[in-house]
Amino acid sequence: MNRHQSPVMSVDDMQQFLAARFPQVNQQGEGALIVEEVGLMSCRMRLIVGDRHLRPGGTVSGPTMFTLADVALYVAILGQIGPVELAVTTSFTINFLRRPAQRDMIAQCRLLKLGRNLAVGEVALFSEGGGEPVAHATGTYAIPR
Amino acid sequence: MNRHQSPVMSVDDMQQFLAARFPQVNQQGEGALIVEEVGLMSCRMRLIVGDRHLRPGGTVSGPTMFTLADVALYVAILGQIGPVELAVTTSFTINFLRRPAQRDMIAQCRLLKLGRNLAVGEVALFSEGGGEPVAHATGTYAIPR
Amino acid sequence: MNRHQSPVMSVDDMQQFLAARFPQVNQQGEGALIVEEVGLMSCRMRLIVGDRHLRPGGTVSGPTMFTLADVALYVAILGQIGPVELAVTTSFTINFLRRPAQRDMIAQCRLLKLGRNLAVGEVALFSEGGGEPVAHATGTYAIPR
Amino acid sequence: MNRHQSPVMSVDDMQQFLAARFPQVNQQGEGALIVEEVGLMSCRMRLIVGDRHLRPGGTVSGPTMFTLADVALYVAILGQIGPVELAVTTSFTINFLRRPAQRDMIAQCRLLKLGRNLAVGEVALFSEGGGEPVAHATGTYAIPR
Repeated sequence: MNRHQSPVMSVDDMQQFLAARFPQVNQQGEGALIVEEVGLMSCRMRLIVGDRHLRPGGTVSGPTMFTLADVALYVAILGQIGPVELAVTTSFTINFLRRPAQRDMIAQCRLLKLGRNLAVGEVALFSEGGGEPVAHATGTYAIPR
Repeated sequence: MNRHQSPVMSVDDMQQFLAARFPQVNQQGEGALIVEEVGLMSCRMRLIVGDRHLRPGGTVSGPTMFTLADVALYVAILGQIGPVELAVTTSFTINFLRRPAQRDMIAQCRLLKLGRNLAVGEVALFSEGGGEPVAHATGTYAIPR
Repeated sequence: MNRHQSPVMSVDDMQQFLAARFPQVNQQGEGALIVEEVGLMSCRMRLIVGDRHLRPGGTVSGPTMFTLADVALYVAILGQIGPVELAVTTSFTINFLRRPAQRDMIAQCRLLKLGRNLAVGEVALFSEGGGEPVAHATGTYAIPR
Repeated sequence: MNRHQSPVMSVDDMQQFLAARFPQVNQQGEGALIVEEVGLMSCRMRLIVGDRHLRPGGTVSGPTMFTLADVALYVAILGQIGPVELAVTTSFTINFLRRPAQRDMIAQCRLLKLGRNLAVGEVALFSEGGGEPVAHATGTYAIPR
């Protein structure tokens, strides 16, 4: 398993691969899900926040944050192991920490473990420009052999 | 706190209250989120599964399941305490257990605790007609005073 | 995998197997961990609560509850698959719901999934005689092939 | 709430306060729980690993890791708010990542949120000298007013 080597997929590879699976990746403007960086055991993604992500009061909805964090973990894993479409989330825990601002949301993901069968990572979500995380997640993916 | 009494909101009350907050509640057909039962410290909801909830291979997506489970917990809480819009999820753990079928999804929620500040519940998700849960979640909501 | 058949280990088998791994299983009186029932995809265990499990104020400590829930999940799994010593916890989420009484603690465990590589279950913890759970946990074990 | 100021308790204050609550804090040698650093929204603790923390095969047990992580989160919170004995864990998620070595275990805790009612933090556990975390936890404490 490619744990400590450079990622095997570039940002462009990843964006192209994701586009087939997540329609919002192809989208322009609001709702677009953008791979900003694929790093060693890590990645950074951005969600262009639009009206349909908001709850009354202008806050980004929990499911939107879950989606972004889940995709970020998937991207960090594929960055190391290549385009394994059938990797699936087995468990996910998310803590909602503070009210997000009505701005783009950034996910910073870091893998904690990349095993043969399981990968575990953590994701911090930030409102763009903001200092403190608005949510924090840890999740596990099962990797098919 | 109304822990052991009958729910204070009927299925119709709830459906009407939710409609303002979750546009998909008003929807007809695919994507509709339906309150089927509001019981004592519990509820049952249904999601009319459509193409946009599916991932390649025809399986219901993780974020779709998260959304359904999160809303079910919200509904079970409001059933006991009334329409407190500002109750917010503070943490959520979901275990994905098996591939869901391409059928409607049912959420069965049960509150484990209803305190003054926090409510905790569990949600089992089933494919309609199926025996074993496809996912299981526990979550916490903060209840504003 | 033996998912829907009767357990393959009896209460006595289990108690004997555990004794080698958890010294407290052999113990008499306070601190003893007792397998009360091994059922289909389930088990019930009891902890004889003693002074060393208590925190100031007389409440059972969080780590004590974690230990009991973790062992109960292990027992429910082994009940179905036999004495696989190297099954290990991979993730565990516990919600502490109410102050436990200074009485024995009962764990009721139910498996949600028993796959080839992973087993997932939930555990409700009760103070003996009490109606509502004092804690609720979900956990995952990796099962070596 | 004292979120961004220096800690209000020193390492010595903390060690003294904990000793009353956790007997193992007073202990010498094996089993001792040592506060190594109380920092801004963070702390570092050490567990002197001894035979009673081990499972067959020489690995540190899950409950031992849970205990260390839970105490570390408590210490990081008290470091900011002072000796509030009645802060209690409300939820805790731990991912076990790799087999710990038979060496002392280090917990590095960082608070993600310190609110009026709830504090949320993450804890990474390491075998002394080792590079990669053996476990990772996130937890929530309720803070009484």
